[in-house]
Amino acid sequence: MPVLYDKVALIGLGLIASSMALAMRRAGLAGSIVGHARSADTRAVALELGLIDAACATAAECVADADLVVFCVPVGVMDALAAEVGPHLAPGACVTDVGSVKQAVIAAIGPHMPAGVHFIPGHPLAGTEHSGPRAGFAELFDKRWCILTPMEDTDPAALTRLQDLWKGMGAYVDQMDPAHHDLVLAVTSHTPHLIAYTMVGVADDLRRVTDSEVIKYSAAGFRDFTRIAASDPTMWRDVFLTNKDATLEILGRFTEELFALQRAIRRGDGDHLHEYFTRTRAIRRSIIEAGQDTDAPDFGRAKVK
Amino acid sequence: MPVLYDKVALIGLGLIASSMALAMRRAGLAGSIVGHARSADTRAVALELGLIDAACATAAECVADADLVVFCVPVGVMDALAAEVGPHLAPGACVTDVGSVKQAVIAAIGPHMPAGVHFIPGHPLAGTEHSGPRAGFAELFDKRWCILTPMEDTDPAALTRLQDLWKGMGAYVDQMDPAHHDLVLAVTSHTPHLIAYTMVGVADDLRRVTDSEVIKYSAAGFRDFTRIAASDPTMWRDVFLTNKDATLEILGRFTEELFALQRAIRRGDGDHLHEYFTRTRAIRRSIIEAGQDTDAPDFGRAKVK
Ligand SMILES: NC(=O)c1ccc[n+]([C@@H]2O[C@H](COP(=O)([O-])OP(=O)(O)OC[C@H]3O[C@@H](n4cnc5c(N)ncnc54)[C@H](OP(=O)(O)O)[C@@H]3O)[C@@H](O)[C@H]2O)c1
Ligand SMILES: NC(=O)c1ccc[n+]([C@@H]2O[C@H](COP(=O)([O-])OP(=O)(O)OC[C@H]3O[C@@H](n4cnc5c(N)ncnc54)[C@H](OP(=O)(O)O)[C@@H]3O)[C@@H](O)[C@H]2O)c1
Repeated sequence: MPVLYDKVALIGLGLIASSMALAMRRAGLAGSIVGHARSADTRAVALELGLIDAACATAAECVADADLVVFCVPVGVMDALAAEVGPHLAPGACVTDVGSVKQAVIAAIGPHMPAGVHFIPGHPLAGTEHSGPRAGFAELFDKRWCILTPMEDTDPAALTRLQDLWKGMGAYVDQMDPAHHDLVLAVTSHTPHLIAYTMVGVADDLRRVTDSEVIKYSAAGFRDFTRIAASDPTMWRDVFLTNKDATLEILGRFTEELFALQRAIRRGDGDHLHEYFTRTRAIRRSIIEAGQDTDAPDFGRAKVK
Repeated sequence: MPVLYDKVALIGLGLIASSMALAMRRAGLAGSIVGHARSADTRAVALELGLIDAACATAAECVADADLVVFCVPVGVMDALAAEVGPHLAPGACVTDVGSVKQAVIAAIGPHMPAGVHFIPGHPLAGTEHSGPRAGFAELFDKRWCILTPMEDTDPAALTRLQDLWKGMGAYVDQMDPAHHDLVLAVTSHTPHLIAYTMVGVADDLRRVTDSEVIKYSAAGFRDFTRIAASDPTMWRDVFLTNKDATLEILGRFTEELFALQRAIRRGDGDHLHEYFTRTRAIRRSIIEAGQDTDAPDFGRAKVK
C-alpha cells in the first residue's frame, strides 16, 4: 500500500498506539512515526521496540510537521493535551483520536483545534485487558470495526484518507453521529464492563466464599467476567465519567429487567425464565453469523495476547 | 487405566453425558456404556456416534445390572427419573449425577435410593453453550474441577472409585458440603449467567440501538455476555428454580454494589470508581495463576467446541 501520511504523531504509547504503530508498519502506511508519552520509561520502551522512529519529551514537539496526529491517551487527559498541542499543529494536518466515548472527546479537543486543521474523532472497537507499549500487536484491528464521527463540515478528502488508514490497518470503517455512538457503546461495552466489575467486586467481598474457591471454580462463567473486569482502571473511570448519561440510562433499564427476573425466581415462574433465556440465544447466533465471534475453538479471542 | 465400572448407565445423553462417554472410552474406564434419553432421535445419534454400546427405551431398563448410574438430565426431571429407576437398581451400585445444583438434587434423588445403593452427588465444573449428544468431546473435563458432595455415611470405597473415575476423565476432584456448593456456584456461575442473560435482554429490547449495531459492535465486551447467555434455557431455568435462595442472596448483594457504583457515576466520583476497578484486577491475576485461564491466546477456551 502507498504511504498515506508522511509523519504520524502518536500522543500516548499504550496498547492502542503501539498496535496502530505495528499495523501501520505492517502495511507501510506511514513515512515515519513519532510519539510522546507521559513517562520517559514508556517512551524508551516504544523506541526500543521500534514502534516509533523518535520519541518526544513533550506533545507539542511531537506534532510539529506531522500530517496525522492521533490522541491515544485516556479520555480525561485529552483536553489538556489538545490545549498544549493546538498552537503547534501544522496547517492542513489531520487530528484524530481513539477514545472510547465521542461527545466528551469532541468537547475536549474541538475547541483547541485551529482553523485549517481537520479534526475527525474515531474509535476502534478492539482491545484487550492489557495496557502499555508492550501490549500492542499488529493484528489487533483486523476485521474489527472502527467508528468515525465526522462533523458536518469535515473535508471529504481528509475523511477518505483517514478511512483508508484504518482499512489499511485491517479494520472495517463505519460512520456515526457522536451521540448515537455513545449510546450504542453504552449498550455493547460500557454497561457490560460496569456489570462485570460489579460481579467481581461482589465475589471479592464475600468472605463466606473464600477467595481461593472463587478462583478455583471460576471456569463456570465467572472467568469471562474477570477478563472484562481486568481492564485498565484509569481508562474505565474516564469512560464512565464522560459517558454518564447513556450509561445511567442503560443501567436503569438493566436494573428493571433484572428485578423482573429476580421476581420470577422468587415466585418460581419457570415459564418466564425459559422464555427470556430462549430469546437471548438468537442474538448469539446473529453475532456468530456476523463474523464477530465463532463457534470454532478460540477464534473469537484469536490474536488477543 | 483399569476398568473401574463394568457397566455404566447414562440417563440423559446431552453435552455432559456424551463428553463423559468419550472421556471414559479415552481412558478405558468402563466395560460397557448404555444410555437412555427422552427422544428416540437422541438415542439413535448416541449409538451412531459410538458413545454408547446400547440404547434403552426406558431409564428403568438402562440401570439393570449397571454398577454405575449417572443422571445427566436437567435438574427438574431428576425426581421423576429417580422414582422410575429406584426399584431397578442393582444392589451395591453407585448412583451419581452431574447437576449444577446439589441440595435440590439430593432432595430429588435421595428418597428414591434403596438401601445398599451408594448415592454420591457430583458436579463437573465444565461446559459450553452447546447441547445434545453431538456437542460432547473427550477433553471437556481435562484440568477442570469436579465437586462431589458425599453424605456422612457414604461408603469410602465407593467414594474412592467415583473419584478415580473423574480423575481418569481428566478432572481434579474436590469435596464440599451441598449448601456450600450451592452458594459458591451462585457466585461463580449462577448469578453471572443471570446477569449476562439480563444484559443481552436489555440490548434486544432497545429499539433505538438497532439489532445489527449491537451485533456488529459486540466485540467490545458484549460478546462475552452473549456467549454465556446462549446456554440451554431448560438447564438454566432449572438451576434458578432449584438454587433460589443462594441466587437471590448474591443478586441482592450485586444490586447493592451496582447502586453504589451508579451513584459514583452520577456524582462524578472518579476516585471511588478507580479504587473499585483496581481491586478487581487482582482477582483476574489470581485466576491466571491458578491455571483456570491464561493470558496466552485462547487457551482459556481451548477445546471448547
Ligand atoms: N484498551 C482498550 O480496550 C481500548 C479500546 C478502544 C479504545 N481505547 C481508548 O484508547 C485510549 C488509550 O487506551 P490504551 O488502552 O491504549 O491505554 P494504555 O495502554 O493505558 O496507554 C495509555 C497511554 O497514555 C499515556 N498517557 C496517560 N496520561 C498521559 C498524559 N497526561 N500525557 C501524556 N501521555 C499520557 C500513557 O503514558 P505512560 O505509559 O507514560 O503512563 C500511555 O502511554 C483511551 O482513550 C481508551 O478509551 C481503549
Ligand atoms: N451444560 C453445562 O454447561 C453443564 C455443566 C455442568 C453441569 N451441567 C448439568 O448437566 C446436566 C445435563 O446438562 P447437559 O448440558 O448435558 O444438557 P443437554 O445437552 O441439554 O442434554 C440433556 C439430556 O437430557 C435428556 N432428557 C431431558 N429430559 C429428559 C427426560 N424427562 N427423560 C429422559 N431424558 C431426558 C435429553 O434428552 P433429549 O435429547 O431426548 O431431549 C438430553 O439427552 C444438567 O443437570 C446440568 O445442570 C451442565
